[in-house]
Amino acid sequence: MSLDPVLAALDADRDAALERLFALLRIPSISTDPAYRAECRRAAEHMAADLRSIGFDATLRDTPGHPMVVGRNDSAGPDAPHFLFYGHYDVQPPDPLELWDTPPFEPRIVERADGTAMISARGAQDDKGQAMTFIEACRAWMTVTGTLPVRVTVFLEGEEESGSPSLPGFLDANADELRAEAALVCDTSMWDRDTPAICTGLRGMMSEEITIHAASKDLHSGLFGGPAINPIRVLSKIVASLHDDAGRVTLPGFYDGVPETSQSVKDQWAALGFDPAAFLGGAGLSVPAGEADRSVMEQLWARPTCEFNGITGGYTGEGFKTVLPAQASVKISCRLVGDQDPHAIRAALHARVAAMLPADCTVSYIEHGSSKGIALSPDNPSVRRAKAALEDEWGVEAPTIGMGGSIPVVGQFKDRLGMDCLLVGFGLDDDRIHSPNEKYELSSFRRGARSWARILDALSRPA
Amino acid sequence: MSLDPVLAALDADRDAALERLFALLRIPSISTDPAYRAECRRAAEHMAADLRSIGFDATLRDTPGHPMVVGRNDSAGPDAPHFLFYGHYDVQPPDPLELWDTPPFEPRIVERADGTAMISARGAQDDKGQAMTFIEACRAWMTVTGTLPVRVTVFLEGEEESGSPSLPGFLDANADELRAEAALVCDTSMWDRDTPAICTGLRGMMSEEITIHAASKDLHSGLFGGPAINPIRVLSKIVASLHDDAGRVTLPGFYDGVPETSQSVKDQWAALGFDPAAFLGGAGLSVPAGEADRSVMEQLWARPTCEFNGITGGYTGEGFKTVLPAQASVKISCRLVGDQDPHAIRAALHARVAAMLPADCTVSYIEHGSSKGIALSPDNPSVRRAKAALEDEWGVEAPTIGMGGSIPVVGQFKDRLGMDCLLVGFGLDDDRIHSPNEKYELSSFRRGARSWARILDALSRPA
Repeated sequence: MSLDPVLAALDADRDAALERLFALLRIPSISTDPAYRAECRRAAEHMAADLRSIGFDATLRDTPGHPMVVGRNDSAGPDAPHFLFYGHYDVQPPDPLELWDTPPFEPRIVERADGTAMISARGAQDDKGQAMTFIEACRAWMTVTGTLPVRVTVFLEGEEESGSPSLPGFLDANADELRAEAALVCDTSMWDRDTPAICTGLRGMMSEEITIHAASKDLHSGLFGGPAINPIRVLSKIVASLHDDAGRVTLPGFYDGVPETSQSVKDQWAALGFDPAAFLGGAGLSVPAGEADRSVMEQLWARPTCEFNGITGGYTGEGFKTVLPAQASVKISCRLVGDQDPHAIRAALHARVAAMLPADCTVSYIEHGSSKGIALSPDNPSVRRAKAALEDEWGVEAPTIGMGGSIPVVGQFKDRLGMDCLLVGFGLDDDRIHSPNEKYELSSFRRGARSWARILDALSRPA
Repeated sequence: MSLDPVLAALDADRDAALERLFALLRIPSISTDPAYRAECRRAAEHMAADLRSIGFDATLRDTPGHPMVVGRNDSAGPDAPHFLFYGHYDVQPPDPLELWDTPPFEPRIVERADGTAMISARGAQDDKGQAMTFIEACRAWMTVTGTLPVRVTVFLEGEEESGSPSLPGFLDANADELRAEAALVCDTSMWDRDTPAICTGLRGMMSEEITIHAASKDLHSGLFGGPAINPIRVLSKIVASLHDDAGRVTLPGFYDGVPETSQSVKDQWAALGFDPAAFLGGAGLSVPAGEADRSVMEQLWARPTCEFNGITGGYTGEGFKTVLPAQASVKISCRLVGDQDPHAIRAALHARVAAMLPADCTVSYIEHGSSKGIALSPDNPSVRRAKAALEDEWGVEAPTIGMGGSIPVVGQFKDRLGMDCLLVGFGLDDDRIHSPNEKYELSSFRRGARSWARILDALSRPA
């Protein structure tokens, strides 16, 4: 069998692999900010060129937003099973910049006293580092054997961090090309530093920006304060109305389609030894703030949320300005589970705003994305094969777990292509993705690549 | 009598007077922004030099913040009555810059089709243009007669737009020098374009910035959303709690010391023919949003308010970021009337925040200013003399009115120096002070100077 030489090749090539990741991390492909449009395209071209160098027929596909990268490698032969690998080359904005210890787009290795090391950069984990674990595994297979164990299409998106607006249309238009036995996605976390995991439950997302407009211009609060409606006051009343004192979301119908977690699943979770105090303590917190009657694990993996990701209005600089602002806005995202319908929830949110909107105010909305939650059976054949491969690499059983985050593409693959996703990632909860000082463990990068080399092999064998 | 030649000198010198104002407006003396510290000092030096050129013994006085300008002119002789003129040389930040038709610190005259003209610039009215009306009047008196009709101390502050932190200490330390028969302040408005006014009622102010701190760092809303407390949610509940559905402020004791407006005052106001629909319509509004049982005029002149001048937290840029922020903050200002105590109200606000603060959250405050409301009798001798002088200039009676804004120095003069303020200003409600495209009517600038020339003369005569 050729797996051992492939693993040996990965080990031998690991410094060069790190250099390749660094080259990608140096590109500030911030998809949400129009100022970085050219950088996003540069990242896409960089990925396509790298894929072509290891036998993929890779091209950029233009969209109304940032381009998709699609590359196909049929070296396994026409009868081999076909898998789609999905990742994204875009990253979150790095702000607040002043909180980074080193510049976000100048990747570096930071060594710790205990001998471990991490890769520090925006995107080091999410998702450049994670995606490159798969591509390095492919590179090693191609180098050693000249073929991949299975047919692989690599599909990289550039809008994951900004709501994936071009994705649905692209999937519909290219369904035959992209449909495969399953999708492989490397955008999730390990259970802990020594224990890999397969994610079989993901929350969906409904995200929306609400702007309340009042006066036709900013006013002086001395001249107009009192009679003139203040949009910050209006917006705060709306935001404050969305949760009751027990942490439940108050939108009518919000919990429709939320399944109760079965006792057997709760038992599995209990066996994982999750420590809520340690989890919250890592963020400087001690008391769970979600639904009062649910455990932290349920709040994270099985319950929906309504979060406020940003709010702004009036003068927000240093000092004081007695302005009565013309508008105020909030960015809201709801994490969804089970059969919750993002469209119904968006409608309920709009109805709430309309009901609370006073005279002289108007509202405008920007829709940032909609996806349903997703659940995969632990008995899925890809899950079983990946589980065995991960155990071979890490020497411990890989649990199937839920995850609080949303990967909208997973729902899109299911809805539009009828395709399940195998979610295997090597992140850790303290990777600070979306925050300053994002990092990826060097061990995650290296053993992640070895894990994918093994999973590719496992997927080529009979179930 | 020398008044007529003085008025003629003002008319003859009016183009040069405009050039002098423009030179001052070109200095971006934004007191709230530390980046403009040197520009504030430059404005102070510019004013002191101008005062020295017309016979004032003017110097800069350093403070922990921006310098004060104090200049004295005793040319009227030791037995003449002594008046203090107060103004401020600092201005509000000009943002949002993109809404200005022309650059805020490049003053220019904009002529209208009806033959009227306005001076467009940040500070054109508040308070550079207004202050210069008084200084031009002094210049004309000095040019024509070599003396002023009364002894005058000009006192210019550089922190009015940022809470006047250095003022109380400065007044205490220089009380003997600054105390006078009355203070003259040119920072208020006319009743309308053709009718000057004397302001005898001013609201005070209590301003405060509140920041709610939650997690020790920004978190990913997918990884932590649910169990981790969201400071925007906490802050919105607090902000939303501050007004009831009838527009009343809910802080305990907030209305303590608020006097009822007498019927005679209401009758005077009714005679002014104020049009609430036109007033609100000028801001694109139609329904008064203050206390439901009070008229618009009462809401503006006689009732306290609690306004939100700015709110911020999390990601506020374009697009979306699924961050769960570490903190959120709001800038609040309460306009006060009668005997409302700013310190008691600040304490009530802090108590409300403390009572609503959930586990794991902390709060920090920045105090931006405190001043009580002020009221002056229409029978005050300075008021009566100024009223006559204004009627001479404008040909109509100058009403005594209330004003919604706050001029903290007025309360400070009363409390620390036992000195009343004569508030005469030539602004208009549509001057857009604190907003983009601030302007000052050219007629306000010119006839304002003529008005002060007359008032100086009137103040020199027996009551």
